[in-house]
Amino acid sequence: MQAARLHEYTDDMSEALSIDDVDRPDLERSDDVLIEVEGAGWCQTDNHIVEGMWTDYVDQDLPMTLGHENAGIVADVGDEVTLVEEGDPVICHPVQTCGICRPCRLGEDMYCENQAFNGLTTDGGFAEYVLTTERAVIPLPDGVDPTEIAPHADAGITAYHAAKKATEALNPGDTCIVIGIGGLGHIGLQCVDAMSAADVVAVDVKADALELADDLGAHHTVDSSEEDVAAVVADLTDEVGAQQVLDFVGRDETTALGPDIVAQGGDHHVIGYGGHVHEPCQTLVFGEMSYQGDLVGRYTELQELVALVDRGDVELHTERHDLGEINTVAERLEHGEIEGRAVVLPP
Amino acid sequence: MQAARLHEYTDDMSEALSIDDVDRPDLERSDDVLIEVEGAGWCQTDNHIVEGMWTDYVDQDLPMTLGHENAGIVADVGDEVTLVEEGDPVICHPVQTCGICRPCRLGEDMYCENQAFNGLTTDGGFAEYVLTTERAVIPLPDGVDPTEIAPHADAGITAYHAAKKATEALNPGDTCIVIGIGGLGHIGLQCVDAMSAADVVAVDVKADALELADDLGAHHTVDSSEEDVAAVVADLTDEVGAQQVLDFVGRDETTALGPDIVAQGGDHHVIGYGGHVHEPCQTLVFGEMSYQGDLVGRYTELQELVALVDRGDVELHTERHDLGEINTVAERLEHGEIEGRAVVLPP
Amino acid sequence: MQAARLHEYTDDMSEALSIDDVDRPDLERSDDVLIEVEGAGWCQTDNHIVEGMWTDYVDQDLPMTLGHENAGIVADVGDEVTLVEEGDPVICHPVQTCGICRPCRLGEDMYCENQAFNGLTTDGGFAEYVLTTERAVIPLPDGVDPTEIAPHADAGITAYHAAKKATEALNPGDTCIVIGIGGLGHIGLQCVDAMSAADVVAVDVKADALELADDLGAHHTVDSSEEDVAAVVADLTDEVGAQQVLDFVGRDETTALGPDIVAQGGDHHVIGYGGHVHEPCQTLVFGEMSYQGDLVGRYTELQELVALVDRGDVELHTERHDLGEINTVAERLEHGEIEGRAVVLPP
Amino acid sequence: MQAARLHEYTDDMSEALSIDDVDRPDLERSDDVLIEVEGAGWCQTDNHIVEGMWTDYVDQDLPMTLGHENAGIVADVGDEVTLVEEGDPVICHPVQTCGICRPCRLGEDMYCENQAFNGLTTDGGFAEYVLTTERAVIPLPDGVDPTEIAPHADAGITAYHAAKKATEALNPGDTCIVIGIGGLGHIGLQCVDAMSAADVVAVDVKADALELADDLGAHHTVDSSEEDVAAVVADLTDEVGAQQVLDFVGRDETTALGPDIVAQGGDHHVIGYGGHVHEPCQTLVFGEMSYQGDLVGRYTELQELVALVDRGDVELHTERHDLGEINTVAERLEHGEIEGRAVVLPP
Repeated sequence: MQAARLHEYTDDMSEALSIDDVDRPDLERSDDVLIEVEGAGWCQTDNHIVEGMWTDYVDQDLPMTLGHENAGIVADVGDEVTLVEEGDPVICHPVQTCGICRPCRLGEDMYCENQAFNGLTTDGGFAEYVLTTERAVIPLPDGVDPTEIAPHADAGITAYHAAKKATEALNPGDTCIVIGIGGLGHIGLQCVDAMSAADVVAVDVKADALELADDLGAHHTVDSSEEDVAAVVADLTDEVGAQQVLDFVGRDETTALGPDIVAQGGDHHVIGYGGHVHEPCQTLVFGEMSYQGDLVGRYTELQELVALVDRGDVELHTERHDLGEINTVAERLEHGEIEGRAVVLPP
Repeated sequence: MQAARLHEYTDDMSEALSIDDVDRPDLERSDDVLIEVEGAGWCQTDNHIVEGMWTDYVDQDLPMTLGHENAGIVADVGDEVTLVEEGDPVICHPVQTCGICRPCRLGEDMYCENQAFNGLTTDGGFAEYVLTTERAVIPLPDGVDPTEIAPHADAGITAYHAAKKATEALNPGDTCIVIGIGGLGHIGLQCVDAMSAADVVAVDVKADALELADDLGAHHTVDSSEEDVAAVVADLTDEVGAQQVLDFVGRDETTALGPDIVAQGGDHHVIGYGGHVHEPCQTLVFGEMSYQGDLVGRYTELQELVALVDRGDVELHTERHDLGEINTVAERLEHGEIEGRAVVLPP
Repeated sequence: MQAARLHEYTDDMSEALSIDDVDRPDLERSDDVLIEVEGAGWCQTDNHIVEGMWTDYVDQDLPMTLGHENAGIVADVGDEVTLVEEGDPVICHPVQTCGICRPCRLGEDMYCENQAFNGLTTDGGFAEYVLTTERAVIPLPDGVDPTEIAPHADAGITAYHAAKKATEALNPGDTCIVIGIGGLGHIGLQCVDAMSAADVVAVDVKADALELADDLGAHHTVDSSEEDVAAVVADLTDEVGAQQVLDFVGRDETTALGPDIVAQGGDHHVIGYGGHVHEPCQTLVFGEMSYQGDLVGRYTELQELVALVDRGDVELHTERHDLGEINTVAERLEHGEIEGRAVVLPP
Repeated sequence: MQAARLHEYTDDMSEALSIDDVDRPDLERSDDVLIEVEGAGWCQTDNHIVEGMWTDYVDQDLPMTLGHENAGIVADVGDEVTLVEEGDPVICHPVQTCGICRPCRLGEDMYCENQAFNGLTTDGGFAEYVLTTERAVIPLPDGVDPTEIAPHADAGITAYHAAKKATEALNPGDTCIVIGIGGLGHIGLQCVDAMSAADVVAVDVKADALELADDLGAHHTVDSSEEDVAAVVADLTDEVGAQQVLDFVGRDETTALGPDIVAQGGDHHVIGYGGHVHEPCQTLVFGEMSYQGDLVGRYTELQELVALVDRGDVELHTERHDLGEINTVAERLEHGEIEGRAVVLPP
């Protein structure tokens, strides 16, 4: 089968992956599930993986097929699988978990001590087939198109996870700032809106993105290339600040906004991750604020997101590309030219 | 009356404060309470105030009497005060709150929008008398000596507050690291122990401090000047890390430990505040960890700490000094020569 | 001034209260606030008070002016009041709290140890003026009419409080059942909808009420006089049950539904209170369910509800009556003839 | 092998079970684990099962081997098991869970939609061998004796689960009442003490039980056959009541204590389950209290309890009996003659 594989780390996205002919994966365990891929989202993390930014954090054996946002049709199942059968449409949680270690038993899929992560530590879904397990697939409700929903497998779940943590601390009358209305941010904004009665303030540097935020229900939009974000937030919140900030950008200049826009006792969620957090301890203490990292999300959170999609509470902006165009997609995302989310279609 | 007052910001602790003769404060409102000070703790924050480190965060009118860890005997009360009467021994929460703004109504005393903070924004307790309000005093149980308990008004409540946040996330079998077994840390360690069944690992660079930690119930002690803290923690926790870290030091080198010692999903609490947090966003994301600032504590938390003291769960290590020695105390703390906490006694 | 007062407990609502001529209350404390009443809601609890159902729970000195759902214009303030001034429109939390006891310091207004409760333990708002305190009034946003919002002072806050507790446990895809779409229930339904992405199932015996529920966004309605509620819920939830149930009726037959409709680990909130809870312990254990009583709500929750109203998330169905018609209102509510909420207007 | 099996429901404990000769169970799935039983606790629930009290709640095929509190040595494992191997000492969570349904994914083992429960819905551990699964076994730390720890598999985990829920709401200075210092209660008391700084008040009718409570650290003991529990609690708590009550008895007379001993906003946990809850809704509303059913506990809670045992925070009082004496054990428990917990040893 064809698969888009990373052979060498590089900063040149025009030669990020090569389309190779590889063997279709075989079932190995009683709970394995083979998926015929219908769509796989391209993510900023894919760029980061290509650049080698994950080598300090996880083990990667190259060449490796990338692709961690996968949805498709069940093609084959191990002999003890009961959740799905051949022909079922599913969305794939990116992590295959053991179900045995303590994090798994707590429902903390992302901390599984024996995990494989498609497209990060094992072959992913930029291919005709991807191998996963029963604990990583979620059957789709009738009428939900796998290609359409694929980006929720990572962009969606990550945005939902952060939004859910934020909404637990948001009361009616509170303010939530969403920084970066791109692939993740435009989902996060809708999740906050669906799950709370807080006012959402959207921040971006692109007019298109702010317009999208406005369409999706943001109560206020701020162009941070032209306006003083801190001053706008102070004005909107009677000098109190925002109880929660979702930073889907994670550059030095966005994390630096934290102390000026977060209310005392609030949190600056770090989801995007190109830059650094750099602040005096005294600033964190005086504001009793946190910088809170957020990592993808739980299997059950992907179930909840599918329910939101099924209710019509979250819509996804996507563009579709053939597998052969994958390096073009990588380049365009690098230059901020993707609107919403790019989905790659296997041959 | 005599009062130790700050006239000018300085880095020279030998001339930090001058002992002035000032008027005894008058009651002004129906809920005012005048306290005859029995003891007032000297805090690292006092050094920071003297250095001018708080001028960016709050308004300060100099000269100002310092002292935010106060306990004493009620000397006079406003005409609508019911909680205490003349002669009652009390400990003083450092913040006088309005009881009207939304943070006050939520029980979040530290975020009061109309607050005065003894020794930080208004006159404090290094004096014969200090003026406070009904909402800032807590009557002491029989047999509790105001001089003895005074440091709990800030060192204690701050350590308790951070420990309480940590214990909410700690299960039996989990690990909590306490960095810095000084004035706050030796209290925080005992609070974690009293309120959870987690194992406490104490980290310091001084043998005396580690011995104290051991006496107070630490399950393991690490001398970070000699041992590799991350390696020890990995070994003690089967490579999982500590679910919670309480950093009572807050220097660059202690915050830098975070990613190597915090378990995925855990928190590095920043309580001490001389240094910075400086980390890649990716590190926070991958570890799903936070840097969480902690700011003093709630009035009700001071009540809870008094209950802990009354139960015998928390003991305080103090040394006593006359008001006239106050600059010597400031210097000795600057040089790390105070064991436990210094309490200043008015004439 | 005129006031509708209870002189004797009775089951005959046609002579529940008498309109007396009484003195206008005087300010007594520095934080007192006198309100010129613009509207006061009549509540099922007023019927219960008239029947003497509260004598086992609180002390009542008759005669007493009833009315605990009050809004109006500030007429006079004590000399230390800063939150409001003469002429400000406000809604009144029904409880005047001390701000000093531990429950107050925790933000738990309903448990204040030194409270007065208008229309329950002290004179209420079925009168031209009602006396309250600074800690019990909330200034209204521009454009909000006191007469219109008055019922939120108790019906609203009680429904909001229960809904907020429920939504803390509700995830997207979960189900919340609202039993009784009357004065409280029609608010509760909207609050759940605004603060969560759970599906709301409305249960009532009146077609009008179910139609209202449908208009207000219920995902499903059940006529419990004709349908088997448990069977419908099992069907809607794939046999799982509802994670949360809000029982605004509180009769024997509604509490008895609990074990058949609550999911394992869920809660049956008891808000209405005419009947009993009567179940085998084994049923509670096997379902790991609770019967959870809910009592009015916090001051900050009334602030949050006002924010919901201001956002347009909650609309109130009211009918208006003159003070002289008050016993007719009492009778009509007793017979289930009030649609939404009745507001009594002073002369 | 020999197994103690229930053939017919009966109220006569002298003929509760018969010792049959049955086949040793075979491994069927890749994750099955066969245990050679070293000890199995006899529980009040076993009496209730014999009486037929569970037939309305679960499906039971008789004859069935009882025994849901099991520990032993791994005798054989399915071919995909990695957590344990032959010869490992383990304690068994009573429920075999699927690891696939939503409750499992949330960590809520007790709500697994595809569960088997040893000794309740499938054969249990009053036998030489018991069949379970990888997700139901916990390896024991070095030096922990399976026979000694067996009762923690249900008595322990149930007491721990309830205690953990209670301690989440307990602050220093609060009060927790433990009703019934028997097999579960004496563990619950120690768990509350280890995980909180609340004062524990133990209530029982037997002098021996109260003495044991005293030895185990109860701050106060009440003989409810002689003292007025409500009056004692009011006195101990300054009329506030206990924030949490753990009712390990669950008879009509113990649940009836709730409204008189629970503080406003508190919970009466129902763990024992012979009787009923019967209260006016108004009582639940006015006290804003709950009756909260508690059902066994999570797998991860059994891990945490094992950690508590390993720390020395919880000791277990047991007596040992041969399998042949099992009906005598049943009778003695029925008559309240078992001190602590009875452990049955296979031949």
